[in-house]
Amino acid sequence: MAKEKKVQRITDMEVDFAQWYTDICRQAELIEYASVKGFTILRPYGYAIWENMQNIMDGEFKKTGHVNVAMPVLIPESLLKKEGELVNGFAPECAWVTHGGGEKLEERLAFRPTSETMFCDHWSNILTSYRELPMLYNQWCSVIRWEKTTRPFLRSREFWWQEGHTIHETAEEAIAETEQQLNCYADFYENVLAIPVVKGRKTDKEKFAGAEATYTVECMMKDRKALQGATSHYFGDKFSRAYDVTFTGRDNTQQYPFQTSWGSTTRMIGAVIMTHGDNNGLVLPPKVAPYQVVIVPVAAHKPGVLDKARELFDTLKAAGVRVHLDDSDQSPGWKFAQYEMKGVPVRLEIGPKDIENGQCVLVRRHDGEKVVTALDGLAEAVQEQLTVVHNGMYERALKNLTENTFEAHSLEEAKKIQEEKGGFIKTMWCGDLECELAMKEQAGMSSRCMPLEQEHLDDVCPICGKKAKAMVYWGVAY
Amino acid sequence: MAKEKKVQRITDMEVDFAQWYTDICRQAELIEYASVKGFTILRPYGYAIWENMQNIMDGEFKKTGHVNVAMPVLIPESLLKKEGELVNGFAPECAWVTHGGGEKLEERLAFRPTSETMFCDHWSNILTSYRELPMLYNQWCSVIRWEKTTRPFLRSREFWWQEGHTIHETAEEAIAETEQQLNCYADFYENVLAIPVVKGRKTDKEKFAGAEATYTVECMMKDRKALQGATSHYFGDKFSRAYDVTFTGRDNTQQYPFQTSWGSTTRMIGAVIMTHGDNNGLVLPPKVAPYQVVIVPVAAHKPGVLDKARELFDTLKAAGVRVHLDDSDQSPGWKFAQYEMKGVPVRLEIGPKDIENGQCVLVRRHDGEKVVTALDGLAEAVQEQLTVVHNGMYERALKNLTENTFEAHSLEEAKKIQEEKGGFIKTMWCGDLECELAMKEQAGMSSRCMPLEQEHLDDVCPICGKKAKAMVYWGVAY
Repeated sequence: MAKEKKVQRITDMEVDFAQWYTDICRQAELIEYASVKGFTILRPYGYAIWENMQNIMDGEFKKTGHVNVAMPVLIPESLLKKEGELVNGFAPECAWVTHGGGEKLEERLAFRPTSETMFCDHWSNILTSYRELPMLYNQWCSVIRWEKTTRPFLRSREFWWQEGHTIHETAEEAIAETEQQLNCYADFYENVLAIPVVKGRKTDKEKFAGAEATYTVECMMKDRKALQGATSHYFGDKFSRAYDVTFTGRDNTQQYPFQTSWGSTTRMIGAVIMTHGDNNGLVLPPKVAPYQVVIVPVAAHKPGVLDKARELFDTLKAAGVRVHLDDSDQSPGWKFAQYEMKGVPVRLEIGPKDIENGQCVLVRRHDGEKVVTALDGLAEAVQEQLTVVHNGMYERALKNLTENTFEAHSLEEAKKIQEEKGGFIKTMWCGDLECELAMKEQAGMSSRCMPLEQEHLDDVCPICGKKAKAMVYWGVAY
Repeated sequence: MAKEKKVQRITDMEVDFAQWYTDICRQAELIEYASVKGFTILRPYGYAIWENMQNIMDGEFKKTGHVNVAMPVLIPESLLKKEGELVNGFAPECAWVTHGGGEKLEERLAFRPTSETMFCDHWSNILTSYRELPMLYNQWCSVIRWEKTTRPFLRSREFWWQEGHTIHETAEEAIAETEQQLNCYADFYENVLAIPVVKGRKTDKEKFAGAEATYTVECMMKDRKALQGATSHYFGDKFSRAYDVTFTGRDNTQQYPFQTSWGSTTRMIGAVIMTHGDNNGLVLPPKVAPYQVVIVPVAAHKPGVLDKARELFDTLKAAGVRVHLDDSDQSPGWKFAQYEMKGVPVRLEIGPKDIENGQCVLVRRHDGEKVVTALDGLAEAVQEQLTVVHNGMYERALKNLTENTFEAHSLEEAKKIQEEKGGFIKTMWCGDLECELAMKEQAGMSSRCMPLEQEHLDDVCPICGKKAKAMVYWGVAY
């Protein structure tokens, strides 16, 4: 029996948000499941989004002097174990290679869950003098963390990411690097992905294994849950000491460099889906959309329509717009639904009447607005619309974040707000783990971060009544 | 005790070619060894070369409609075993993951040695109709093959590569794809890496495990040994049948698509080193050089020199030249040696006298030629020199290839030439494995390929005396 192309149909997000999310991942052809449990395939359309993210972010990293390298994917167990907190954090999630070339290995090797250990080992071999500092390295690769439950882009046994690793002569420089890269992520989320973020510092409970401080950008999804967008860590000289990374300082003494690492992953695609998507499918920010514009000819059989469509394609392409012309024999209605599912930011409709009037219709994906546009000066008009789209998407996401951020003055109040409305709930906090655990147990929320922009809501911690040290954002997180 | 930066010093290639090669890899800071035996680290300078290669080649792939994807890195043993020839070819070299998340896995997973199996498995899930064909996929990733002896870039347990995988409606289209990608590699070698190649087809003994036909580009190194540059394979419908990949054809019957795969690796960096390098270090083709030009100020302390050097830097950068200004306090002599080691194609010297005369000196790395150049119109002059460099490097490599390709009419003659001169030796061949093995055993040479441009040297196979079927290139290969 002949296989047939499945009809596209997705669950409404109000009915089942999780299913809606998975439906988009599949129907927009971003991912497909693989034969290995918990692993996914990034399909061409999904990978093209990731490629655009990589290109833009890599350019930003290079502007500030970072260079790319490639480290081995396998880490000897003994090397991984040199820093106790790190190995305790990651060893339970490691995949282990035990055999190679038909023989049992003398020592098992971990598929990298993160590469601090490899970078430190490398630096311990090559670093000699303060003159070589800072070393500002990054790598694009995949890592494995053996998660029990998985979800496309958000939690997958293998995921693709960049991991930046740097060493510096002084603590001040390393701290400045940590902050610079946090800001780099925040700018990327806001200016590229059209997603507003809350910048802050993680509590000790939530920080990266072995880090002295972890900074994060937190975003709010359409279901008002939190998503950790990217993180930036400061290690002090803890790893340098554990891995014996040293250099001759300006004063001719042996010193330990200060270290950072920072990472962002394909999870950003998940953030885009859950921040901007709707019941017709994906809605892509123009800067990472594989196609920014799709041209759909209407009454394509009429003389001159396809020629004009091709001419407009050439015009937009020459102007640097990522444009796709669908001149297939599918109906315009099918095409409309198809490219809505795929989240193409702007649809350009052109038919015989339009050509007669020297115009076309631009339809914005995110708000459905139709803009009748003169063919004369089309490229500029399209660029303008792409900016309108980006800003419109950002504003809508910001509204969601702002309207769903609440303050609470007691654990009970926090719990009630979370149950009734969800979102981010801010309270003061004494800094004790016990109160953090109480919020988790009683209100189901983890601490998202201590925002860099602090507010004074109360004098005391609303959980224990002790003196408050900081304001915390709480939420239910992916 | 303070560590000190090692003095650069490399072995002469005439003394010990293998050691000369390794010395360049280390001293030009392309690679460093890792704590895992047989694995290497691509350092920033080495990775930057690879990035340039990737960018150019990826652009070429996209021009012909290929798209990138990411497949899981781990392959279940049962999936790998579905196609017998492939598993026999690769299983002995696999690294196996046996434990994940603290538990023994039910089935062990191979770190991909190549991904035909994963692509076929994926296609068996998503392909429905001839309308979706061809599927022209590629991925950039690393693979593991557990080699016994390793050498930087040439043979390493982990290496970085691209693997293209495509399926087509007809055998003709798949064969055309195989040829197109072979030509793509040949063009890349010649136009980008300045390395001439011999295009040909592999014998059955040397072809890819499971392929119906393997095509190759073969290059000759400075020691007159052969290096397989890249390969392109045609599979017929063998894998489609093994993995049950089917589609509904134009006639509404279920059909198996025809498949290709093609790959090139970081080994290309090794080819560059051994084709162009000399006793002063690396010599890089301008199109992949991280820096195409290095500006070295002479008498930099004299007024105006550094300012002028910076001005020239800005001029060249604005013109799209990859340029580096070394304004450090090292001596010009040290800098000359340093950038010769790193293979920068053009050195630009600028001192007070030059400024007075409105000129600078361009020194070409590959032939040491000094070209006094007016500062007026510098960018164009530099671009011109980069073309001169590329062409000069190509011509020199072509001379090496041409002058060291010989014909032989008996096994004894072939053996004698190989012992005395090395290089490629061409003979006729009957097509039998026995004769191929005899050449290997008695003259130490493997068949490199049956060139697409055939010549008629004899009527019979010089090894067995039977009727000749094709002309073969023989050589000692890396």
